[in-house]
Amino acid sequence: MTAIAPINSTSLESEVRSYSRSWPVSFTHAKGSTLVAEDGREYTDFFAGAGTLNYGHNHPELKKVVIDHFLEDRVVHGLDMFTDVRSRFLETFNDLILSPRGLDYKVSFPGPGGTNAVEAALKLARKVTGRESVVNFTNAFHGMTLGALSVTGNSLKRGGAGIPLVHATPMPFDDYFGQVVPDFMYLERLLTDGGSGLNKPAAVIVETVQGEGGINAARAEWLRGLADLCTTHGILLIVDDIQMGCGRTGGFFSFEEAGITPDIVTLSKSISGYGMPLALTLLKPELDIWEPGEHNGTFRGFGPAFASGAKAFELFWSDDELEKSTIAKGAYVESRFNQIAARHADRHELIVKGRGLARGLQLPTGEQAGQVTSRAFEEGLLVETSGPSDEVVKLLPALTIPDEQLRDGLDILEKAVDEALTA
Amino acid sequence: MTAIAPINSTSLESEVRSYSRSWPVSFTHAKGSTLVAEDGREYTDFFAGAGTLNYGHNHPELKKVVIDHFLEDRVVHGLDMFTDVRSRFLETFNDLILSPRGLDYKVSFPGPGGTNAVEAALKLARKVTGRESVVNFTNAFHGMTLGALSVTGNSLKRGGAGIPLVHATPMPFDDYFGQVVPDFMYLERLLTDGGSGLNKPAAVIVETVQGEGGINAARAEWLRGLADLCTTHGILLIVDDIQMGCGRTGGFFSFEEAGITPDIVTLSKSISGYGMPLALTLLKPELDIWEPGEHNGTFRGFGPAFASGAKAFELFWSDDELEKSTIAKGAYVESRFNQIAARHADRHELIVKGRGLARGLQLPTGEQAGQVTSRAFEEGLLVETSGPSDEVVKLLPALTIPDEQLRDGLDILEKAVDEALTA
Amino acid sequence: MTAIAPINSTSLESEVRSYSRSWPVSFTHAKGSTLVAEDGREYTDFFAGAGTLNYGHNHPELKKVVIDHFLEDRVVHGLDMFTDVRSRFLETFNDLILSPRGLDYKVSFPGPGGTNAVEAALKLARKVTGRESVVNFTNAFHGMTLGALSVTGNSLKRGGAGIPLVHATPMPFDDYFGQVVPDFMYLERLLTDGGSGLNKPAAVIVETVQGEGGINAARAEWLRGLADLCTTHGILLIVDDIQMGCGRTGGFFSFEEAGITPDIVTLSKSISGYGMPLALTLLKPELDIWEPGEHNGTFRGFGPAFASGAKAFELFWSDDELEKSTIAKGAYVESRFNQIAARHADRHELIVKGRGLARGLQLPTGEQAGQVTSRAFEEGLLVETSGPSDEVVKLLPALTIPDEQLRDGLDILEKAVDEALTA
Amino acid sequence: MTAIAPINSTSLESEVRSYSRSWPVSFTHAKGSTLVAEDGREYTDFFAGAGTLNYGHNHPELKKVVIDHFLEDRVVHGLDMFTDVRSRFLETFNDLILSPRGLDYKVSFPGPGGTNAVEAALKLARKVTGRESVVNFTNAFHGMTLGALSVTGNSLKRGGAGIPLVHATPMPFDDYFGQVVPDFMYLERLLTDGGSGLNKPAAVIVETVQGEGGINAARAEWLRGLADLCTTHGILLIVDDIQMGCGRTGGFFSFEEAGITPDIVTLSKSISGYGMPLALTLLKPELDIWEPGEHNGTFRGFGPAFASGAKAFELFWSDDELEKSTIAKGAYVESRFNQIAARHADRHELIVKGRGLARGLQLPTGEQAGQVTSRAFEEGLLVETSGPSDEVVKLLPALTIPDEQLRDGLDILEKAVDEALTA
Repeated sequence: MTAIAPINSTSLESEVRSYSRSWPVSFTHAKGSTLVAEDGREYTDFFAGAGTLNYGHNHPELKKVVIDHFLEDRVVHGLDMFTDVRSRFLETFNDLILSPRGLDYKVSFPGPGGTNAVEAALKLARKVTGRESVVNFTNAFHGMTLGALSVTGNSLKRGGAGIPLVHATPMPFDDYFGQVVPDFMYLERLLTDGGSGLNKPAAVIVETVQGEGGINAARAEWLRGLADLCTTHGILLIVDDIQMGCGRTGGFFSFEEAGITPDIVTLSKSISGYGMPLALTLLKPELDIWEPGEHNGTFRGFGPAFASGAKAFELFWSDDELEKSTIAKGAYVESRFNQIAARHADRHELIVKGRGLARGLQLPTGEQAGQVTSRAFEEGLLVETSGPSDEVVKLLPALTIPDEQLRDGLDILEKAVDEALTA
Repeated sequence: MTAIAPINSTSLESEVRSYSRSWPVSFTHAKGSTLVAEDGREYTDFFAGAGTLNYGHNHPELKKVVIDHFLEDRVVHGLDMFTDVRSRFLETFNDLILSPRGLDYKVSFPGPGGTNAVEAALKLARKVTGRESVVNFTNAFHGMTLGALSVTGNSLKRGGAGIPLVHATPMPFDDYFGQVVPDFMYLERLLTDGGSGLNKPAAVIVETVQGEGGINAARAEWLRGLADLCTTHGILLIVDDIQMGCGRTGGFFSFEEAGITPDIVTLSKSISGYGMPLALTLLKPELDIWEPGEHNGTFRGFGPAFASGAKAFELFWSDDELEKSTIAKGAYVESRFNQIAARHADRHELIVKGRGLARGLQLPTGEQAGQVTSRAFEEGLLVETSGPSDEVVKLLPALTIPDEQLRDGLDILEKAVDEALTA
Repeated sequence: MTAIAPINSTSLESEVRSYSRSWPVSFTHAKGSTLVAEDGREYTDFFAGAGTLNYGHNHPELKKVVIDHFLEDRVVHGLDMFTDVRSRFLETFNDLILSPRGLDYKVSFPGPGGTNAVEAALKLARKVTGRESVVNFTNAFHGMTLGALSVTGNSLKRGGAGIPLVHATPMPFDDYFGQVVPDFMYLERLLTDGGSGLNKPAAVIVETVQGEGGINAARAEWLRGLADLCTTHGILLIVDDIQMGCGRTGGFFSFEEAGITPDIVTLSKSISGYGMPLALTLLKPELDIWEPGEHNGTFRGFGPAFASGAKAFELFWSDDELEKSTIAKGAYVESRFNQIAARHADRHELIVKGRGLARGLQLPTGEQAGQVTSRAFEEGLLVETSGPSDEVVKLLPALTIPDEQLRDGLDILEKAVDEALTA
Repeated sequence: MTAIAPINSTSLESEVRSYSRSWPVSFTHAKGSTLVAEDGREYTDFFAGAGTLNYGHNHPELKKVVIDHFLEDRVVHGLDMFTDVRSRFLETFNDLILSPRGLDYKVSFPGPGGTNAVEAALKLARKVTGRESVVNFTNAFHGMTLGALSVTGNSLKRGGAGIPLVHATPMPFDDYFGQVVPDFMYLERLLTDGGSGLNKPAAVIVETVQGEGGINAARAEWLRGLADLCTTHGILLIVDDIQMGCGRTGGFFSFEEAGITPDIVTLSKSISGYGMPLALTLLKPELDIWEPGEHNGTFRGFGPAFASGAKAFELFWSDDELEKSTIAKGAYVESRFNQIAARHADRHELIVKGRGLARGLQLPTGEQAGQVTSRAFEEGLLVETSGPSDEVVKLLPALTIPDEQLRDGLDILEKAVDEALTA
């Protein structure tokens, strides 16, 4: 690799930086599923801003809306004041996303990022129930501020808190034990046993597909069982759809497939459609006991994000084309992964994971997965790992990625896997 | 008031919304210090996005940079990958802000908003010292996620946490007791008394001027005393400059006047210069013990914000014109407030507060302050209250507000105060 | 029942009183396994002070030692000063209990009761490891002060804390799922999975037989597995032997049978042999990093308790007679319980539980178990229930109970069970 | 010093032992204010079991009652069952202590030691108010279990917890700033300022005279002010009278002098009159919302302690002789201390502290105070230090100490002080 990290600015930055270590080049331009580096080299993007760019980089129709917003001197920063663009965002969201799915949610703007949405969700659940504890799942990721971090699994990230993270009890995610035990055996027993020592939880917070956790997709029946368990025990169900919502698994919400209706839903990442900071916390109307301003923040009304978000709803969610295409593309990735796994099956166990266009190929070791992504980078493909040992090669391409580019990227990946496993 | 709130979108939104209650009109356009409502009415903005728009709404030269960024399909969402625009932001920040002030900080991008910057600061301070407790100050405001909320004073906001907020001990801010007691008498004694029961703090977190707390400006000697106390006791000093930095009080950093060098500094709000979500946590190089990725987040690399931020440094911080002008404008506001206070002095005690262009006029009651801001709104002026009883009329106009518009706004305010006090 | 509760003193006492509700008579005298009420009625004691009176009430040889201590004006209250009787207690404990079992522990006197011993154990484990979290087990009981309560399961008792009880994660005790899952499947997985979200524990605290939890006896191989798991992961193993130690299950320590050596052991209840407040926390010498006085308390040196405790070691632990007799008596209780269970097996599932002379008969419902103990009381037998629904009739008779008295008590119990199940 | 520590038993004991380090001899007998060591040497006891032996060691009339209790095989260990001796204790306590003082409290038996009483008090206050936080005072000492430790000041002891101690905020005790500030200035302001950041407390816990904290006696008007403040703000007032109750300051309760009526009172130490483990938590009847068994423990019904406690009420609290004598003896100690202080006033500032027979002489340094107590020990006097730097020579002699023995002890002390200050 000949790319040289830009020395000056690097030395100004804290050691906490991360992605620039995997991909030590400086990018300048981006379009669709392609990023361009300073030296002009093009990279296919199988990461899409960790699921923030479901419609690709700088989508031309969204771009037009955003530029017009700036050109016309429309309100860019509006706190949570009423603006026309904010109203339009809300109405479009209601008309094209909530109503067609029979969902009745109030929307709150908890701050610009996903972790704000999670913090607001947890605060509300605690306020509504008067309980403090929350059940989360093994290998969950919900954010880096203290509330969200306490329900996140990763031990490095938890360790960064510098204080004991409490008020959360991790429960086994779907298939954590390879289905040798009945679903929710442990959680259900703890909830019904008055001597279990489990503090009765305010809420359960869950991702339908754990992205950072290794592209672990919960089965629909597991999600339904979880929803039933919550109903039975008077516990609020929070679905964190920050990474898996906005069409990543096919439908707009990742929980649609299971036919459940969470009490609270968090959205962010792709909600603006253009990689701009925006987050929503959806709540059932009967839970809306917030006092005015009880949760607030400066960046809850970023005009261009409202504009592009509303436009994205219109472009992609007026019909079911994107959903179908996502499922088809996802099936293609799955089949390619299955082929790769089958080819190595005699010597290595590769596990194919995921749902929709959130896909993972689990390698025997994190070291091998790291070799795959390094090699892919050299070949012009940006792809990341996840999972507790970084052992899962994670695919989160733009949903709009052209079939050919997807295929070519998978070709690179296939070769990289072959090399890593035969090294 | 004849303005009608946009019914449809309002009913979709959670009761937690706040500013749209004070100003129940829908805004569409904005430029400089003027916001335009749907009905075409213009409002002078004395709030500036709670200090996010120090250079006014949609500054034309910054706008050009932002639009070009979009037009050229430069990287909009870049996580924390290297991008050319990110490097330029860092280098310009170093060249125009840090170096000229003799400051040696590493920069981390903790997430898009101020609360993320505070969370990162607290996490780092705890990690570095191995201690958990933090000292904050009465009437502090640092954010709404659990870590930042625990060092925030407001009881309504704290109550929203739904769990006991711990690990923080509030100490009296400057002048909390009208200077009848020596500075830091209590804190110093608790720190030196091995039987005091104070958990030895990792850090002290302080605003040099408390915005939400009522525009309480700490004296320079108090800040120096605090810095000395921290040094003596091996406690890290965090200055939260999210609202008061970026020139609000004159110099770029609000702590420059006191001549202190905090260990950690948080910046956000006006750092992009255009109201776009961006935040920084600055740390002394010797504190940079973060592991890669130990604190992260999706929206740490918003390209247009880097572009406008770098341009704003060039436009406003290549010389000391803005600083001088801010101090002059601030002095003008102060003199006007002094006149108002003097005129009512026989019947009401009005207190003139603040520094630079963070100014407050404290009325006898929160009700009166609310009457002032309501009346001002009717007359086309957006101005907010703060303080524990919302008793302080708070001025945070754009630093770039034209003298005439500032004067006219103050005229409105003066009349509104007169009305409120003679009602 | 004609017994009248002593009205005057009852009205002076808080509603928190408990045993006097089950047995509303006033007792005056006691000897061996017999308690005498104010009206002269005699009751057989199958509860033995919740396991505090393993050698019966007022054992004549211990009594002599105690009275002599008082008569001779020996030191009664000695804080933790050296006294001759304290030295003798320690030496006898070492010579007759620790040394013969090849155990090398340092002894600390953490305060007068079991909960003090648990608090000291948890504090030490946290200090030694630098970690905060502790793993406890479902249906555990360790005490009522905040540290001990946080590792206790019962929800009523936990609720009494008035603050969220944190830093503890409950894991399934042996047989919690009827052995459909491998032992420690969940705990082991959480410990090895860096993304599990389990805060790495300082210690595991366990009772070998859960008394309050329903006389749940862990299998020896489960205890060995737990000890191995702790060793593998560098976690301290605390055995709370407050109720099950001092010969209750046969050997002096309840963990001897499993052949494990805990890092820390708590003892109390029967350690004085005479129902007098005394508690010990045993710790492996290499863990003895306490600073002088870092944990202390007023009642750590109760002279008469040292005297009777040392004498009890000599009387009961100079040979293996008591151990053999306890096992034989336990086997007799078990056979009687098995007969009762078999007789009702066609209509009710009764479960026979326990080890040594800690025995339980689990009835289908807590109501039925309550009927059994009420009826037994009417017939002159004191016996309690335990378990999460109070569904287990719990036998903790003195180890010294005469065979005939044990048989007669069981006859009463058998009839009471028959009545309750045919009602 | 030629005394040899008993080697064998010492090596068996944890390093946490404390008093045996100051007084490295082994004691065997005790009577009144005299302890006898193994070598026959007699020591005058100015420590009285840290205030546990207000009526001296082994008082002959109490001893008779205790021995009779054992001789007659009365119930020694009775959990919280009704026993005749328990009823008599309650009735005598009511008749001789509560009623004559117009106090209407319910009594709970929270466990055998003071820390149990404090834990029960805190739990109840939190349960009653639904709040978690508690205000304690600088240099407070309330016990070593986690709940009590969190409201204790000493940093060594707090550090032993191994987890962050939270839910408590230390406030300045009376005279903490030499009366340069109004009483409760800080606490009152924090309580009334909605933006102070103080979590509204469930309770304030206070010692009227801080024993461990350095014999700091609060003024009666300060205590009245505190009680008023609690009433005004709906906060429960807990007086921890474990060390200062039972006549130590003159009246039975140390708060009588101030004329206040706490909501909750803790008692232990001298309550049995004979150094036997017993503790009470008194609560106003309207606070008695405990569920049966919500707080419990094994050693809540130690028969001999009830017997001697009831007898002690009769012996010492049927009239006001003891109270008068304590005040007189206290005045004598004070006058002697004043003489000593006056004699050294030109070169050293000695501070005379305390109330009743809780008296302290503060030396310039902890080292000097340590020299005094070491020298006193050599001369046959047992006296301890306290205070944050162990700089206060603390006198807690038995209230029954003969005048001559008190005088002789003070003579020893006086010489020891002279030596220490002229060394």
